[in-house]
Amino acid sequence: MKYPNNIKKIKNGKKNSIFSFKNKGDTLEYDLNLANHYYNQHAIANIHKKPTPIKVVEIDKNNKIITKAFFQTPSTTDYNGIYKSKYIDFEAKETMSNTSFALKNIHNHQIKHLVNIKDHGGIAFLIIQFVNLDKTFLLKIEDFIEFKNNNKRKSIPLSFFNSNSYIIEYNFHPRIDYLKTVSKVYFEGSKYEKKKGKEEK
Amino acid sequence: MKYPNNIKKIKNGKKNSIFSFKNKGDTLEYDLNLANHYYNQHAIANIHKKPTPIKVVEIDKNNKIITKAFFQTPSTTDYNGIYKSKYIDFEAKETMSNTSFALKNIHNHQIKHLVNIKDHGGIAFLIIQFVNLDKTFLLKIEDFIEFKNNNKRKSIPLSFFNSNSYIIEYNFHPRIDYLKTVSKVYFEGSKYEKKKGKEEK
Repeated sequence: MKYPNNIKKIKNGKKNSIFSFKNKGDTLEYDLNLANHYYNQHAIANIHKKPTPIKVVEIDKNNKIITKAFFQTPSTTDYNGIYKSKYIDFEAKETMSNTSFALKNIHNHQIKHLVNIKDHGGIAFLIIQFVNLDKTFLLKIEDFIEFKNNNKRKSIPLSFFNSNSYIIEYNFHPRIDYLKTVSKVYFEGSKYEKKKGKEEK
Repeated sequence: MKYPNNIKKIKNGKKNSIFSFKNKGDTLEYDLNLANHYYNQHAIANIHKKPTPIKVVEIDKNNKIITKAFFQTPSTTDYNGIYKSKYIDFEAKETMSNTSFALKNIHNHQIKHLVNIKDHGGIAFLIIQFVNLDKTFLLKIEDFIEFKNNNKRKSIPLSFFNSNSYIIEYNFHPRIDYLKTVSKVYFEGSKYEKKKGKEEK
């Protein structure tokens, strides 16, 4: 496939190879940023990824260069914004596992934050991508909590996602059209509810 | 005044001297962070300051130290979150002027962002503090736009704030209880509307 600027992008499995460098490990992040850009441009929603918190220790003031700094643990989730007048907040994670999602991938204070958002009347969920299966799920924070309260496992099996979360179907543009799923789940609730568990175990 | 931990905090004008170091120039930021912490602790709201965006160029991987990075221009505003089920978004600025607030202090894309939030059904405003006058105002984004559209001035005079914005009154704790003002302006609208312009010109 040729692009207007004549850069040939070679297909390499599910991703274009030009995008396949794993800077910070996130192609899901890349897709979500594209989706958010699309939503913003089309006045569908205003959702942004928060910058990674960094503690700056030393600055070269003459050249305005930061010469010493550290990554910090985020106090909230990565994404928030507004959609259909509602506050929306979520965390997104990839897993390379084909069978389960390890709970340690989500910080406890992020879970607490999402529950808090729900209690304030906002929309709060997780987006979990099983990279090798090429499947992306939306898991409501309340369903995540239900799993945690009823299981002693350190990971959520794929079968739980198949039965208790919502598939985010791929689109042409944006590729990960997660707000379509959000709309079905949170704005047309019960109708979609019946579709849960339609995926194979 | 003595505090429980026996640290004597000497009053120095409006601020305790212990807080008077101007790290990043923001005591308003400090007060807003305290307020947001208070709101979070008391389940009143969930509002956070976004981290400053930083472009990381070099990392010492062994020690996990960032050795070269640059500050970036924020693409949105500094603060957002949820209050009474509503999405809330604002930018906060101090001015050392006693007479006006320079428009250049707010980036155009931040204005555009706030208008966009309003159009999506969110609550969007500016918090402007006249440091030397010890006065803090909440200015709705629509009132800011009205000023911009009807004036060729490069700054908003204090008189405009006195007539078209809302005073954030100081409290014991949190000191800058801005959500009290938000509640009056956005949730008890017309009642408060009549109080506009009560401040001296």
